[in-house]
Amino acid sequence: MKERNANASSSEKEAAGNAAASLVEDGMIIGLGTGSTTAFAIAEVGRRVREEGLNVLAVVTSYQAEMLAIEAGVPLTSLAEHPVLDLAIDGADQVDAKLNVIKGGGAAHTHEKVVAHSAKRFIVVVDESKISEELDHFVPIEVLPYARELAKKQFIELGGKPQIRLASRKDGPVISDNGNVIIDVEFGVIEDAAELSQKLSTCVGVVEHGIFLNTDEVYVGMKDGSVKIIN
Amino acid sequence: MKERNANASSSEKEAAGNAAASLVEDGMIIGLGTGSTTAFAIAEVGRRVREEGLNVLAVVTSYQAEMLAIEAGVPLTSLAEHPVLDLAIDGADQVDAKLNVIKGGGAAHTHEKVVAHSAKRFIVVVDESKISEELDHFVPIEVLPYARELAKKQFIELGGKPQIRLASRKDGPVISDNGNVIIDVEFGVIEDAAELSQKLSTCVGVVEHGIFLNTDEVYVGMKDGSVKIIN
Amino acid sequence: MKERNANASSSEKEAAGNAAASLVEDGMIIGLGTGSTTAFAIAEVGRRVREEGLNVLAVVTSYQAEMLAIEAGVPLTSLAEHPVLDLAIDGADQVDAKLNVIKGGGAAHTHEKVVAHSAKRFIVVVDESKISEELDHFVPIEVLPYARELAKKQFIELGGKPQIRLASRKDGPVISDNGNVIIDVEFGVIEDAAELSQKLSTCVGVVEHGIFLNTDEVYVGMKDGSVKIIN
Amino acid sequence: MKERNANASSSEKEAAGNAAASLVEDGMIIGLGTGSTTAFAIAEVGRRVREEGLNVLAVVTSYQAEMLAIEAGVPLTSLAEHPVLDLAIDGADQVDAKLNVIKGGGAAHTHEKVVAHSAKRFIVVVDESKISEELDHFVPIEVLPYARELAKKQFIELGGKPQIRLASRKDGPVISDNGNVIIDVEFGVIEDAAELSQKLSTCVGVVEHGIFLNTDEVYVGMKDGSVKIIN
Repeated sequence: MKERNANASSSEKEAAGNAAASLVEDGMIIGLGTGSTTAFAIAEVGRRVREEGLNVLAVVTSYQAEMLAIEAGVPLTSLAEHPVLDLAIDGADQVDAKLNVIKGGGAAHTHEKVVAHSAKRFIVVVDESKISEELDHFVPIEVLPYARELAKKQFIELGGKPQIRLASRKDGPVISDNGNVIIDVEFGVIEDAAELSQKLSTCVGVVEHGIFLNTDEVYVGMKDGSVKIIN
Repeated sequence: MKERNANASSSEKEAAGNAAASLVEDGMIIGLGTGSTTAFAIAEVGRRVREEGLNVLAVVTSYQAEMLAIEAGVPLTSLAEHPVLDLAIDGADQVDAKLNVIKGGGAAHTHEKVVAHSAKRFIVVVDESKISEELDHFVPIEVLPYARELAKKQFIELGGKPQIRLASRKDGPVISDNGNVIIDVEFGVIEDAAELSQKLSTCVGVVEHGIFLNTDEVYVGMKDGSVKIIN
Repeated sequence: MKERNANASSSEKEAAGNAAASLVEDGMIIGLGTGSTTAFAIAEVGRRVREEGLNVLAVVTSYQAEMLAIEAGVPLTSLAEHPVLDLAIDGADQVDAKLNVIKGGGAAHTHEKVVAHSAKRFIVVVDESKISEELDHFVPIEVLPYARELAKKQFIELGGKPQIRLASRKDGPVISDNGNVIIDVEFGVIEDAAELSQKLSTCVGVVEHGIFLNTDEVYVGMKDGSVKIIN
Repeated sequence: MKERNANASSSEKEAAGNAAASLVEDGMIIGLGTGSTTAFAIAEVGRRVREEGLNVLAVVTSYQAEMLAIEAGVPLTSLAEHPVLDLAIDGADQVDAKLNVIKGGGAAHTHEKVVAHSAKRFIVVVDESKISEELDHFVPIEVLPYARELAKKQFIELGGKPQIRLASRKDGPVISDNGNVIIDVEFGVIEDAAELSQKLSTCVGVVEHGIFLNTDEVYVGMKDGSVKIIN
């Protein structure tokens, strides 16, 4: 696995992130995703809090998002306290024309999906390189550690090529913020994302997979500096 | 919630547990479930190991099963080392005539389901009081702690009455061996267990629910001391 | 283990809880402990927020405290966002005259100790029955599950009688909010709480033990309805 | 943080690992550590099991060690089943002349320390580059996620420079196999390892630190292919 997001310039990500951050309105409870593009949205929300006096409370999706939000000065709350969010903003690994999304490169997709489904409106922010005619990115799947062999077997039965994601700054597998392992599964071109999503959800031992079907809009940072909205 | 299993005599459970334990053959890798009836099966497997020299390796489904198996002298292994089991034996909270099973009163159903699905043959052991024409027991569902409000909302949308299970020897909710909360959901009479099972699996924030559809045989300890087999 | 706190009337607890809640001032960041006496403090802080417009942010020590605080309407934050608290209020299982405290009957003492040590002022609230000339309550100790036998051995070497705490609404051991087991250790009369505290901290496999040495004041709800302050 | 172990050739590691593996005797229960040098020991124990019929049971210290042991064909058990080990073999990040050891570069030191303390004899295997006159390597410390700011403050009070270890194949911090964060703390030259070890153990929020004081022997793989034993 190459270093993540090596092939997109940060100005595209920043454009998308800032555009999404501009949707946040006074008094909103928002969800803040994980990853390099969302990081720009978090920074921009923080700037608006500090400079414009924006009144907002945010729920984070990962330790990374928590650290960035605190650094940016965005006041935080939790889904326990605020189970319904007005808006959630998050990144993606790949997006197709029907707004089907693959997430989980950052291993935070379980918490991200809970936040996305708690929001009235779910916005995905990406740079242009993430847009694809067809979904063919590997699907990251969070799995209970003791179920990893059973999970791999089920993924193979579904036509996938599973690989446990290994860490580089610890020995052994990447461990998610929830304490589980991540299995990245290549399915080739995914013809029917909804069908695969359902099949993966019923696999025993799976905590959550990276296919998201509830995206309302995608904000795409283009190479020319503009932001294209898909909905 | 009343004390578990208060209304069945242990002799019925022992009869069912012993009958299932007699299925274990030399050289098998077996799965050992959780609960008061399975405890008899574990004890009997242990007796056979010690007295008959039975050669067996077992995978446990909980800290309780691990403690009992060690006490009984059953040598243990793991699903990582032996992903395919010859036989798994486990208890249940309710069983209907079609071998649909509800489990999770002991909060161990996630690990139990992983073990059950890793086994070539899955035997459920119960006393007579657990057999029912229709499934109407509450369904225990393991949920990520931060997703509990979203999960409750989804369960209500599916027609259920959810209740977070509270502990009595710690403050707050019961925490599963995996570190999650348990939501017990009343669905009244469950007409279509397969359909509900699939819907619960796709609820966001659910780690695993207590409906098991892969039971091969049920060993029922009867009040008259006999064991009835349903398959 | 008997049902917790069976022998104290709730009016004593309420008196102590309310007295501590009156220490909370506008603008404070506070820590909220776990247990039946602290529950009264949480309810009273909530009443002041709703009725008096008290402006406060609270950090909780457990899922129980989180649930109670949300129900009471106390706005929540986290130690990540606010690492320094103005005041923390928590209960105890036993308190001696030198303000040495044993906690952990609710299995939340690890999180509670982190919160207590993050506070400029740590107040313990108890009913009269918790005050003792000498510390002789068992010490609850949170232990990594795989270290439980090593931990028991070390506790025995320190003169203790360890017992893994078993659950009653799940099978097997009580699991803490952190996913670990609780070992309750009888040490008889604890002559030197500071020394035992240090020895327990260096035991391998121990996450945190229930001896607290940093209490600033104890608010004791008396049978006559008054509150006695020890400091 | 550079890629781990970039500056030692694998032949030195292999020599040390093989030498330690030769200590394993028929019928032993052994502990298997984590990391690149221990990996050679695991492979060699596996070869002896397969080729020489060595009869052994092993306890692993991490998912990495578990995966390697299974691949090598070493039969596994657990500390719950076998709380006392005859021998444990593990790697290190730095070793001084008094056999004080710093571990945790692989984020597995908590489980490793539990295994090391469960063993009658604890052998450390390293290549020559890990031997140092003085201990001056950063100390990896496993910390409960919600305690990270309190922990950093305490480490600074002890003279350290703490840094949360960030992951590269997930977003945000490295998460240990236990679900916690790792804080790497620079203390400069550590004059008194025993004193620092005790102080770190009593820091609130610390699960376990990387200073090991119970090493019996160090097997050092030298550049000339020999193995030097320090004891």
